[in-house]
Amino acid sequence: MTQDIVILAAGKGSRMKSTFSKVLHKVGGIAMVKRVLATAKMLPESTLHLVVGHQGEQVEKECQDFSANIVWQDNPQGTGDALRRVAPFLQSEGATLTLYGDVPLIRSSTLEKMTSLSTPNTLVLLTINLDNPTGYGRIVRDEKGQVCAIVEQKDATSEQLAITEVNTGILLAPNAHLQGWLASLDNNNAQGEYYLTDVIAMAARDGVEIVTVNPENEAEVAGVNDRVQLAALERELQQQTARQLMQNGATLLDPARIDVRGELTTGQDVVIDVNCVFEGKVTLGDGVEIGPNCHLKNCTVGDNTVIKSNSMIDESQVGEHCDIGPFARLRPGTQLANKAKIGNFVETKKAIIGEGSKVNHLSYIGDTQMGANVNVGAGTITCNYDGVNKYKTQIDDGVFVGSNSSLVAPVHVSQGATIAAGSTITKKVEAEQLAFARARQTNKDNWPRPAKK
Amino acid sequence: MTQDIVILAAGKGSRMKSTFSKVLHKVGGIAMVKRVLATAKMLPESTLHLVVGHQGEQVEKECQDFSANIVWQDNPQGTGDALRRVAPFLQSEGATLTLYGDVPLIRSSTLEKMTSLSTPNTLVLLTINLDNPTGYGRIVRDEKGQVCAIVEQKDATSEQLAITEVNTGILLAPNAHLQGWLASLDNNNAQGEYYLTDVIAMAARDGVEIVTVNPENEAEVAGVNDRVQLAALERELQQQTARQLMQNGATLLDPARIDVRGELTTGQDVVIDVNCVFEGKVTLGDGVEIGPNCHLKNCTVGDNTVIKSNSMIDESQVGEHCDIGPFARLRPGTQLANKAKIGNFVETKKAIIGEGSKVNHLSYIGDTQMGANVNVGAGTITCNYDGVNKYKTQIDDGVFVGSNSSLVAPVHVSQGATIAAGSTITKKVEAEQLAFARARQTNKDNWPRPAKK
Amino acid sequence: MTQDIVILAAGKGSRMKSTFSKVLHKVGGIAMVKRVLATAKMLPESTLHLVVGHQGEQVEKECQDFSANIVWQDNPQGTGDALRRVAPFLQSEGATLTLYGDVPLIRSSTLEKMTSLSTPNTLVLLTINLDNPTGYGRIVRDEKGQVCAIVEQKDATSEQLAITEVNTGILLAPNAHLQGWLASLDNNNAQGEYYLTDVIAMAARDGVEIVTVNPENEAEVAGVNDRVQLAALERELQQQTARQLMQNGATLLDPARIDVRGELTTGQDVVIDVNCVFEGKVTLGDGVEIGPNCHLKNCTVGDNTVIKSNSMIDESQVGEHCDIGPFARLRPGTQLANKAKIGNFVETKKAIIGEGSKVNHLSYIGDTQMGANVNVGAGTITCNYDGVNKYKTQIDDGVFVGSNSSLVAPVHVSQGATIAAGSTITKKVEAEQLAFARARQTNKDNWPRPAKK
Repeated sequence: MTQDIVILAAGKGSRMKSTFSKVLHKVGGIAMVKRVLATAKMLPESTLHLVVGHQGEQVEKECQDFSANIVWQDNPQGTGDALRRVAPFLQSEGATLTLYGDVPLIRSSTLEKMTSLSTPNTLVLLTINLDNPTGYGRIVRDEKGQVCAIVEQKDATSEQLAITEVNTGILLAPNAHLQGWLASLDNNNAQGEYYLTDVIAMAARDGVEIVTVNPENEAEVAGVNDRVQLAALERELQQQTARQLMQNGATLLDPARIDVRGELTTGQDVVIDVNCVFEGKVTLGDGVEIGPNCHLKNCTVGDNTVIKSNSMIDESQVGEHCDIGPFARLRPGTQLANKAKIGNFVETKKAIIGEGSKVNHLSYIGDTQMGANVNVGAGTITCNYDGVNKYKTQIDDGVFVGSNSSLVAPVHVSQGATIAAGSTITKKVEAEQLAFARARQTNKDNWPRPAKK
Repeated sequence: MTQDIVILAAGKGSRMKSTFSKVLHKVGGIAMVKRVLATAKMLPESTLHLVVGHQGEQVEKECQDFSANIVWQDNPQGTGDALRRVAPFLQSEGATLTLYGDVPLIRSSTLEKMTSLSTPNTLVLLTINLDNPTGYGRIVRDEKGQVCAIVEQKDATSEQLAITEVNTGILLAPNAHLQGWLASLDNNNAQGEYYLTDVIAMAARDGVEIVTVNPENEAEVAGVNDRVQLAALERELQQQTARQLMQNGATLLDPARIDVRGELTTGQDVVIDVNCVFEGKVTLGDGVEIGPNCHLKNCTVGDNTVIKSNSMIDESQVGEHCDIGPFARLRPGTQLANKAKIGNFVETKKAIIGEGSKVNHLSYIGDTQMGANVNVGAGTITCNYDGVNKYKTQIDDGVFVGSNSSLVAPVHVSQGATIAAGSTITKKVEAEQLAFARARQTNKDNWPRPAKK
Repeated sequence: MTQDIVILAAGKGSRMKSTFSKVLHKVGGIAMVKRVLATAKMLPESTLHLVVGHQGEQVEKECQDFSANIVWQDNPQGTGDALRRVAPFLQSEGATLTLYGDVPLIRSSTLEKMTSLSTPNTLVLLTINLDNPTGYGRIVRDEKGQVCAIVEQKDATSEQLAITEVNTGILLAPNAHLQGWLASLDNNNAQGEYYLTDVIAMAARDGVEIVTVNPENEAEVAGVNDRVQLAALERELQQQTARQLMQNGATLLDPARIDVRGELTTGQDVVIDVNCVFEGKVTLGDGVEIGPNCHLKNCTVGDNTVIKSNSMIDESQVGEHCDIGPFARLRPGTQLANKAKIGNFVETKKAIIGEGSKVNHLSYIGDTQMGANVNVGAGTITCNYDGVNKYKTQIDDGVFVGSNSSLVAPVHVSQGATIAAGSTITKKVEAEQLAFARARQTNKDNWPRPAKK
């Protein structure tokens, strides 16, 4: 059956105390509402409707890649009101699934269980059993076990309060009936709002079968109203991700101290030490080891490469058997061939480093094409910027760059050349040449040390 | 009513295995006894008495800012003995509150609840209900619910052992009665000590009303006897602080991985990544983002500034829209104007950096006054120290400092000047000048590489 | 009594999804099977037998230092099968203790309790009471409390299922009986395997007394089948270690954020901040403070030395009252005398640094012998490598090295000499001399800045 999927994202979220819409706050590096949109999009034959209101322009702009039908809910008057605004856009057949932009961890597998039960005469309700159901609407069933009503906490009898199965708010209703139910909703209640939940009673009344589905875990239906809850879901998601990584064969030294904000793919026998952060799309080959406190973003790392403590890699490609860090920073556009080595306090940017080349200490290599088996001494700087323009440095195979050298781009150091330590190189160095640019050493006797002033 | 507040801090704390007094060990960056003194000082009309003994000189010295009346308890013989030593200093009216230097998380709100109930004929006792009361003195109440005794674990009947309300040791006793009670205390017990708790029975006997107050949470009355307990309270305090920060509108990526040792103030929509440590007084403006593993101490950070991973800031002021790190270290006396940028492996100290100026890589900038829109190349060092004296470097607006330059202070680089890469500058550079100080490059053909020895 | 100790390490461990044998995966930095071997070796009069199979060559090689009798179990058919293969090597007297290479946290104290009960007519069984015994073999006792059988989950009556005492698989059987029991084992079961557990029933039948011992904690008998369990034991071990460190008198800012992979020894009043990692043998003197995110490996640190955030120390010796970091990296062969100071973005390697000497910023000091009271300026590089050979730098007492200097080894800077900032030093500097090697500064007026291209 086709589905309309409505995602409610108009709420104010004042407890977030934010200038941003609540649903734009991130869990696992992705805005909550975008997580829900992405999950919804996995369902086949779906049309997405995104209901926006407070800070709706922000939400609309952030979510534009999903091409959802944006429905404005000004002066929001409850979940039922939101659905009423979407009603004109719903298909005549099929069913409508209602999701929430602030309930970000709902899984597609759960939604698929729901849609698999959908018929034109069935309402599918997502419920959950809670150890402590206080505050939630209880699922009341008749003697046959059929759902007959949802009773809110304040209206419940003591017998009903003992019910642990509660409403999650997520439901899938057949469109043929839904339009009529929505039209019948009223706001005769303390808040003066229209409640979507009221369609349950209408369904029961109309003889529509109400079937229930449970999520795999409680976090799927947990909503976020403040940053304490946001952090709780962040941790829940990180724990799930950590568990998945370990089950796939990665060793995590501490599953409670890894953050994956995006998609981390690990080869066989990857070891990730404590406190690492992964952002965007990161792919680690077989046998990769990541030391403590590393921060990797949108990068690939080849087999058997070792990344030592406190290293950062961003928008870069690292080959196999490389040796990186500690305290290395690979900035966007860095490409390391196999067996390259980037050591401590080294920054690279738009740097192509050839096989077996080494930049071991205290260097800045930017806008550089470097061949194989180059040795760059400590304190080497590629001077790639004149204040307005950037220039390129080319270093060919087998070059030896002495320490504390400055290579003033554009400049070309040819194959097998040697740069003497402490030189500032401004002109091309031909193959096998030695280039030096330094003053003769003079020693003066009996130099008086400065006195304390 | 006026209060005498007695803080007991004479204990030996041998399980700490420390050369420092137990009460000087820190929770949340502050010595436990100083936390108690600071909390006590919030109560109006209070006189502080600090009872010291073991390592008392240390305690007295550390706490001297509180101007408490120091009372020595040599050969300590229990809590009652401590109060007896303070007795001569107590006011004739009012009441005396007894606190403990190793019970550091007591809240002023709880103490205020106690003092609000104080009368000349009322003893106010702080009690708490514990799931597992084993080991604590049970609060025995009569049929009217009035406290009539405290029974220690070893003396309790099986019925009394089932009582979950226990004594915390914190009590507020009317001075008019207290003097007499203290005089009546005896040490006829296994330990040969005088117990303050015994005044409860005396109060009951004398018809003084005993009222009870409960703390908001268990941690308020938790004491520290060893470093396991010290760490537990540290974590408890950090969790409380994290929760408060989130409720105030800061996003914490992991509330279990933030340490605040002092006072952290956050603007709106601040985001703090994992594993950050804040010490002293730190103020973060609106929209500030702090990356993983940062360490900030006594600093202010302006709106919308981003501090990337592994940065440290100490005794510095950072403007708005600045971009700092990763791997930046701002040492005391650094002042960044708006839109300044301090990049990786850069150290600043007593450095005033103008608006929009950039020190992006591998530099040391110390004792420097820098104007706006300066670009400092990678590897630049301000040579501010001759071994005995420190000198200042002045860099005016719009200067471009080439990479690997050394600026030998005292030196002045005037507006719009350019320093060629690799130069050592020792003399003033006038406005718009180019200064260079480097040898001519020489290339020698067919340079024989060194052979393996 | 003498013991044969059999350690089973032949299993496939396919849920690890690893190219390495399961028992070679590490807990606390040490391969699981090596932990068991080391624990077993503590028992006096013991002969070690290591049963290997899957990836047995790896296991044999990794464990060769233990000189265990390697017994191959090809086509493994259960624990009983493993013992049958060892049977020919067992002593005729004494008893045989069976341990498991994937149960790494068993304690020698527990094993000693077992062996202390061993007699030629006693079988000692390690059992444990679990809150949730589901899945484990239950210990069935007769009316006298004697163990009479172990019943597996699937064979248990509902009454037996309620038993919470379960079999751990670890047992000590008298050799005089064991040989016969092993010969009698059969594989008439669903898996077609030989179960060591079956000897319990045989012991009961033969009138051999079965006595039980309990471990101190559950983790001692927990096995590892996948990386989720591996991480759980890692955390358990780290918590135990943290607790021990605190009880010994170290302050840990967060016991959940310290990793000790080897042996950490702490003096009095050591303070270790969050997120530190210790590997190998690390010894910290009295009053040592370690900042957040430090990584120490095989090193000693003298009394009252402070190591600031994000520092790494590897195979080095640090004296007393030293000041290290933040962002310092001491590589193998670094030896710091007392009061030495290594600052930010400084790397040392094979560097002997004299008393009170300072290398405060952005330097690389390698293959260097440095005297006392030397001041090394920011950006100083010892150029110790010519591409094939390494050379030594000698810097005598009281030398002042100006910033951004390059010392081209082999080179000797004698006592009290001064190196001017920005110099490249290639020749010996005699005592009290000033050496400089830099070009004269030239200032050109009205230098036209580059234009945007």
